[in-house]
Amino acid sequence: MPTVRIELLEGRSPAVKQQVADEVTEMMCRLLGAQPGHVYVMFDEYAPHNWAVGGSFFPSPTPATTATTSRES
Amino acid sequence: MPTVRIELLEGRSPAVKQQVADEVTEMMCRLLGAQPGHVYVMFDEYAPHNWAVGGSFFPSPTPATTATTSRES
Amino acid sequence: MPTVRIELLEGRSPAVKQQVADEVTEMMCRLLGAQPGHVYVMFDEYAPHNWAVGGSFFPSPTPATTATTSRES
Amino acid sequence: MPTVRIELLEGRSPAVKQQVADEVTEMMCRLLGAQPGHVYVMFDEYAPHNWAVGGSFFPSPTPATTATTSRES
Amino acid sequence: MPTVRIELLEGRSPAVKQQVADEVTEMMCRLLGAQPGHVYVMFDEYAPHNWAVGGSFFPSPTPATTATTSRES
Amino acid sequence: MPTVRIELLEGRSPAVKQQVADEVTEMMCRLLGAQPGHVYVMFDEYAPHNWAVGGSFFPSPTPATTATTSRES
Repeated sequence: MPTVRIELLEGRSPAVKQQVADEVTEMMCRLLGAQPGHVYVMFDEYAPHNWAVGGSFFPSPTPATTATTSRES
Repeated sequence: MPTVRIELLEGRSPAVKQQVADEVTEMMCRLLGAQPGHVYVMFDEYAPHNWAVGGSFFPSPTPATTATTSRES
Repeated sequence: MPTVRIELLEGRSPAVKQQVADEVTEMMCRLLGAQPGHVYVMFDEYAPHNWAVGGSFFPSPTPATTATTSRES
Repeated sequence: MPTVRIELLEGRSPAVKQQVADEVTEMMCRLLGAQPGHVYVMFDEYAPHNWAVGGSFFPSPTPATTATTSRES
Repeated sequence: MPTVRIELLEGRSPAVKQQVADEVTEMMCRLLGAQPGHVYVMFDEYAPHNWAVGGSFFPSPTPATTATTSRES
Repeated sequence: MPTVRIELLEGRSPAVKQQVADEVTEMMCRLLGAQPGHVYVMFDEYAPHNWAVGGSFFPSPTPATTATTSRES
């Protein structure tokens, strides 16, 4: 009331998820009048081999790419 | 990449939804590094008689309550 | 915590939905130790023309069939 | 086993949905070894004002645009 | 027909899931007139770090807490 | 636009998923007029102990059964 589901590639850090959860919750209270305890934020993480765009799956992360924070998803 | 689904009671105004979509999109770009064109925001609206909490369905809006903006959902 | 989504053909009566919500909520509290206020039950109703099994869509209800309660879904 | 959910803008004709359901079902049987009766195809239709990409909602159809079949979704 | 999705924290025992599946199936047959073979029950398990309520994620289980059955979710 | 979610038992090979993604994408472009880059195909894989039909969970794969490709799901 509301529930917010965020479908994204796996691999985000706990700190990023916490920031997303904080901001989404604040937004839902401010814009929809929800009470904080009623805002559910759920992350549905997908492995790269389970999400295709235009028929192409996301590339699996390599040690190099996982060390960066710029991977778009 | 990501997709954000927001499940809420039906009846929000287009202006509120636009504000939610704007802020969610900006947040996903800023926090997750997503490109704006890849951020999908979808509203799944529920009629009050299709969502129960603790076994109680939400009350159907009446002319009086729909005139207010304080209904919590 | 938990949320229970029930996807079914549209057309169930409010009384049936209430009974389902009551029993699901009681079950989640008894079996999962959930608190009643944290059990969300959501009905996702599908029109017959939006759900196909084996490539066949459900038939649209007719006045005769809607008068019965035996339609399987 | 499997279930296939297709989220799209509302407004597709029954003939198009039938064609999609037929082809998806055939594909799931051929590629996954599913039995036809176990393939569920569900269409989750969204109104244009409930789906935003990059913060922009889809335009509501007008009489002119609904007469064409070229609307992308 | 129907499908029932139960979103909950990960960690429930097979015995509990079996009990839930049994009771949900029985209920759907009794209340909705469904045939048992058409009732799908699916558990969507969430790690504690993927579900926030009011901006707070569920605590990760510790050896002590996982040994009890009273954890609410 | 559209998004296609395929819920199935876990364990399909990357080659099979690629074939499914290719065919679904081609189909959505051909039948719905979608642009390839807008077709999302997502696989939601379920462990056998998280999906029950008629109250019976799918059997967990054994070395013998996983060696075959005929397991129906």
